[in-house]
Amino acid sequence: MITRMSSLFLRTLREDPADAEVPSHKLLVRGGYVRRVSPGGYTWLPLGLRVLRNIERVVREEMDAIGGQELQFPALLPREPYEKTGRWTEYGDNLFRLKDRKGADYLLGPTHEELFALTVKGEYSSYKDYPVVLYQVQTKYRDEARPRAGILRGREFVMKDSYSFDLDDEGLERSYQLHRGAYIRIFERLGLDYVIVAATSGAMGGSASEEFLAVAPTGEDTYVRSTESEFAANVEAVVTPAPAPRPLEGLPEAQVHHTPGTPTIATLVDFLNEKADLGRTFTAADTLKNVLVKTRQPGAEEWEFLGIGVPGDREVDQKRLEASLEPAEVALLDESDFAKSPFLVKGYIGPKALQDNGIRYLVDPRVVTGTAWVTGADKVDHHVVDLVAGRDFTPDGTIEAAEVREGDASPDGKGTLVAARGIEIGHIFQLGRKYADAFELDALGADSKPIRITMGSYGIGVSRLVGVIAEQYNDELGLVWPRVVAPADVHVVIAGKDESVAAGAEQLAAELDAAGVRVLLDDRKATPGVKFADAELIGVPTILVVGRGLAKGVVEVKDRATGERQDVAVGEVVPHLVKLVQS
Amino acid sequence: MITRMSSLFLRTLREDPADAEVPSHKLLVRGGYVRRVSPGGYTWLPLGLRVLRNIERVVREEMDAIGGQELQFPALLPREPYEKTGRWTEYGDNLFRLKDRKGADYLLGPTHEELFALTVKGEYSSYKDYPVVLYQVQTKYRDEARPRAGILRGREFVMKDSYSFDLDDEGLERSYQLHRGAYIRIFERLGLDYVIVAATSGAMGGSASEEFLAVAPTGEDTYVRSTESEFAANVEAVVTPAPAPRPLEGLPEAQVHHTPGTPTIATLVDFLNEKADLGRTFTAADTLKNVLVKTRQPGAEEWEFLGIGVPGDREVDQKRLEASLEPAEVALLDESDFAKSPFLVKGYIGPKALQDNGIRYLVDPRVVTGTAWVTGADKVDHHVVDLVAGRDFTPDGTIEAAEVREGDASPDGKGTLVAARGIEIGHIFQLGRKYADAFELDALGADSKPIRITMGSYGIGVSRLVGVIAEQYNDELGLVWPRVVAPADVHVVIAGKDESVAAGAEQLAAELDAAGVRVLLDDRKATPGVKFADAELIGVPTILVVGRGLAKGVVEVKDRATGERQDVAVGEVVPHLVKLVQS
Repeated sequence: MITRMSSLFLRTLREDPADAEVPSHKLLVRGGYVRRVSPGGYTWLPLGLRVLRNIERVVREEMDAIGGQELQFPALLPREPYEKTGRWTEYGDNLFRLKDRKGADYLLGPTHEELFALTVKGEYSSYKDYPVVLYQVQTKYRDEARPRAGILRGREFVMKDSYSFDLDDEGLERSYQLHRGAYIRIFERLGLDYVIVAATSGAMGGSASEEFLAVAPTGEDTYVRSTESEFAANVEAVVTPAPAPRPLEGLPEAQVHHTPGTPTIATLVDFLNEKADLGRTFTAADTLKNVLVKTRQPGAEEWEFLGIGVPGDREVDQKRLEASLEPAEVALLDESDFAKSPFLVKGYIGPKALQDNGIRYLVDPRVVTGTAWVTGADKVDHHVVDLVAGRDFTPDGTIEAAEVREGDASPDGKGTLVAARGIEIGHIFQLGRKYADAFELDALGADSKPIRITMGSYGIGVSRLVGVIAEQYNDELGLVWPRVVAPADVHVVIAGKDESVAAGAEQLAAELDAAGVRVLLDDRKATPGVKFADAELIGVPTILVVGRGLAKGVVEVKDRATGERQDVAVGEVVPHLVKLVQS
Repeated sequence: MITRMSSLFLRTLREDPADAEVPSHKLLVRGGYVRRVSPGGYTWLPLGLRVLRNIERVVREEMDAIGGQELQFPALLPREPYEKTGRWTEYGDNLFRLKDRKGADYLLGPTHEELFALTVKGEYSSYKDYPVVLYQVQTKYRDEARPRAGILRGREFVMKDSYSFDLDDEGLERSYQLHRGAYIRIFERLGLDYVIVAATSGAMGGSASEEFLAVAPTGEDTYVRSTESEFAANVEAVVTPAPAPRPLEGLPEAQVHHTPGTPTIATLVDFLNEKADLGRTFTAADTLKNVLVKTRQPGAEEWEFLGIGVPGDREVDQKRLEASLEPAEVALLDESDFAKSPFLVKGYIGPKALQDNGIRYLVDPRVVTGTAWVTGADKVDHHVVDLVAGRDFTPDGTIEAAEVREGDASPDGKGTLVAARGIEIGHIFQLGRKYADAFELDALGADSKPIRITMGSYGIGVSRLVGVIAEQYNDELGLVWPRVVAPADVHVVIAGKDESVAAGAEQLAAELDAAGVRVLLDDRKATPGVKFADAELIGVPTILVVGRGLAKGVVEVKDRATGERQDVAVGEVVPHLVKLVQS
């Protein structure tokens, strides 16, 4: 295929678009790959569409290789199935909702768990039908609060979503691992620098959910990784290493102290060190901060109070807390809650008042038996010192709610944690039976008894990948596409006004085309300077310059990535490039 | 590629779906090609998606061949551009409208004229940039009042829409003819039986708009064609052949007659023949029926009355009338209109009162100079006989408003018209400057003066084509796909329980696959009867039966379309089939 720049619908821009912050956004717009239509809505211009299609091809090949079968659902979906699973409301403002002419409710599909489950239920009935993996490469919609970074976070985007259907947990684990392998191959083939991070704390099994994050300093997703091992996890998924319990013997008695004016950890520590005269120095880490929230299980009417104890040097991380309590809702207490519970003494809440009043009390995993704490004495201006876990109070369990900090020990025992940023490019998730339960998706077993199906859900942000690759492959001159996704293999630049130069370039382009090489031919009436700048900006991996050297039988081959230039004899350049392209 | 039916996500159905009326709908559901999700919303199951993709490929190849460049717009579009062209309201209930979380108005794109025009304006500036043809293969949305016939009229569907941008009318005509040629090649390659019908009366030039209709008795679109020529047209586009004017000399004088109780054509003709004693016999065709409507130009506030005279044996065809007056709105007069215009004597309206009161009066083309009519005398119970056009009244022009009937003379002078039904599969349309005017899409000319661009718009209903082909290619046993769109080339049926039969079939499937033949392999544990029935239903063009004959070195090749069976030696069947597939 020869694409002629003289007629290609492409105009490169010299200036960065005003709304662009990250390199991929700037360069994809400047290079004529995408154009903005609305917030988070982009048009794929011809070269952009080619890159997108190249990525789709790789994704499809690897999905087919693990036995995935492609189908395609509508994007406009009726409300009912999403109502049934609660997602019609759970999605909140992120869902685009609309009504048809008869007033029936519809949505623009954000993901299709419901429809896949219903369709499998409609087609399959026997245990012999399973397992099955189905996927689609489809346009999806999410009404993001803050669409940003061009196609990295759009409101209309292309996603590959697949779903596995298995008879049992072992089957689900196999399907999950198949997808994990396919995703690794996809991201490797695309040349991405990425990490796989644990996305849940592992309560459902170690690999119940993992995210593939492209390493990118501009990324919106933060994660932590170990300084000394392969460990990487979402902050929500970090499991705090619990210290070993300590002996209770010999620990001092708990004592209540009058600590006037110490409703915060800072004022408390100051008071203890400066005025209490206890013969010891305290830090915030010696205090136990008790935070009250209320939670509500899905479908429940009543809120329930929950006390959470974390070392006073750490904040409660809202996202970690919510992840730990999922699927329950979490909210802070309001004034009326406190008014109704006079035993809650703000700023001085201790474990005793909570547990005496039937409030569940969960603590950070660091609060092990034998650790002594300064904490509230349930009385204004009073704290208790040397309150020992396992002796003076016994929590109802532990919870991952405290913030994770750089320097924390890695959960795998190797090194410490550092924070990093990335862009989510894939997510694999053992859904289990949530959707099968909602729709009663059963297979009839060999014994004629129904078997509830278990599902996995797996997504890749296909259009986002165009942005992610651009984010990882660029330099100060422009884009630097890996060959597998590049919009062309060779960018032929006609650098000279002579008829013979143009004729020679056309000849070479024709020969390359005949050999199956995808050629972008710059046959415009423009200066070599303009053409070179555009070639660098557009980022085709190999640039072939046909210029004055042609008279001496020489053309120049330039590697876009390394900048390396090489003079090659005209007679040898086609086989040379064919070899390069196939390598 | 080998697709195994043992694991393929496919369940054929023995019963027609309850909501299906047309053969394609029944068979595509029964054959496991599509499944309904909502009214007019369908899922493409794996085999259906393959057929769709095959059609898309043919469409893309032919669009690329005429220099079309593919890009892709969002489906979710902001209101503003559609507001600017008036289509936000013009589309009425057919448009899916929605709001985003901030309350901004969006729509799901039905076609993309606005966006293409804006994008070209954004990228191009010089006359040297033109012409350009851009296209997309995209999911589109229309909130049809009555989605029906499965994928033939859906609310979410795949369309190829393209747009040409030219500097002048000659350029537009060239772009139009290029598309016309591409469409002919596409529909020929897909094996469709179709007609090209004129879609406008030609006021804007003979080929300003044409529709491609697949011939189908179940079709929703009616058109007329000549019994003796290639002429075919939408009813709205039929131009009435006007008779030659006749001499005025020797025609009797116009005379007003008292015709009590004759407000309708039937009562009038009866009266004239039975009671008036005029010495002649009258038919409805001798009367001139005057119909009053009101029209309003786009953007205008005021309605204007319009009188329309048609021979009394014909009704006014609302669609033809509207097409003739486009883009003006048309409405019937209400009682208040008549109350304000006492000169309008209902049932007895004649040309005189209209023209005396400044109402424009247009007549059917049959009302030529020298024709004599019985028509209203603008007075209750009175008609005028022998009112001669060009002598007693002079219309303000002609209008195509009278109904077209079977038996009418063909406009090309050859034969008469008969009615036929079809399904619209393509539409090519010389838009002109409507959208360029709305968005001030200009090119800077060689003389530095702006040139207003002229556009063409061209559509193919890609997903509908799956249904249309199924509608034209089926028999009592099932679907009969043309090879170019078939989901596989050869359907290999393992017809026997012997290990050796299965092994032989597997071997042949592998050899066919290696030769590039797309194989659907029925390796299920099912009876030959079930497998044969499914093979006929699914409709792959060639069926290879591997059964007991294998022991004697023979397999059976069956042509799905003709039903012809042929025994072929095992050693020869692969080259035989490869040849068949490539032919």
